[in-house]
Amino acid sequence: MQDSDKGTVNDSVIDAISFDPQGLVPAIAQQHDSGEVLMMAWMNREAVEQTLASGEVHYWSRSRNSLWHKGESSGQTQALKELRIDCDGDTLLVLVDQKGVACHTGRRNCFFTAVRDGTLETIAEVEIDPKELYGDGTKS
Amino acid sequence: MQDSDKGTVNDSVIDAISFDPQGLVPAIAQQHDSGEVLMMAWMNREAVEQTLASGEVHYWSRSRNSLWHKGESSGQTQALKELRIDCDGDTLLVLVDQKGVACHTGRRNCFFTAVRDGTLETIAEVEIDPKELYGDGTKS
Repeated sequence: MQDSDKGTVNDSVIDAISFDPQGLVPAIAQQHDSGEVLMMAWMNREAVEQTLASGEVHYWSRSRNSLWHKGESSGQTQALKELRIDCDGDTLLVLVDQKGVACHTGRRNCFFTAVRDGTLETIAEVEIDPKELYGDGTKS
Repeated sequence: MQDSDKGTVNDSVIDAISFDPQGLVPAIAQQHDSGEVLMMAWMNREAVEQTLASGEVHYWSRSRNSLWHKGESSGQTQALKELRIDCDGDTLLVLVDQKGVACHTGRRNCFFTAVRDGTLETIAEVEIDPKELYGDGTKS
């Protein structure tokens, strides 16, 4: 994409998204090559624009009420591979290349609790000690 | 799972889920073997319970304000393979075996609009004519 096109690109993408009354849309992050679903978070218009402009995934943190450049403090960034929009525009699928781990627990993805044989089972190991990720206690 | 365990199973699963103020939680449906992300919809407590009890995926339809047995009218059902819960309990990943197509447009998945080279591009073909799926105009 050429720099001169950015405004137009963003406008057409933003127009295709149905943000909820809070101005947010759920965004599913999927590892582009393996198909692993890494996490789900929320984007507002600014997060979508920053993701497209920077090539690194940004979300809107509902707990901090601020733009969240994923991995800014932990180093576990997500390089944007492709942004997709669902049939009614109210969910995004973000194909990414995840650096390290997506989950703040230090696991590769956030969906490590499975219902198996009638019990909740933890099915993934911690790959990076969260203390290594968040020296300052910030979740990112 | 044994029938006698169902109550206990459901309770522990329900307790692990953080439903939003509307009593809903986003649920991502992923084809269990290919990794294809099919759709995102919402579940309430009843939808989770019915999904676990029946082995077929149920959602909560926000537009119809009613329980939605996916594929009940269209035949495009989702057999439950595994239910997973994310790290903070506010998103579900549902591994399924999708019969036919997941999307009401007749495409295999709902995420067929991609941002490529600065434009919105339709990247999947219609596999089943929606008229074949919804003779009565009901979306399911």
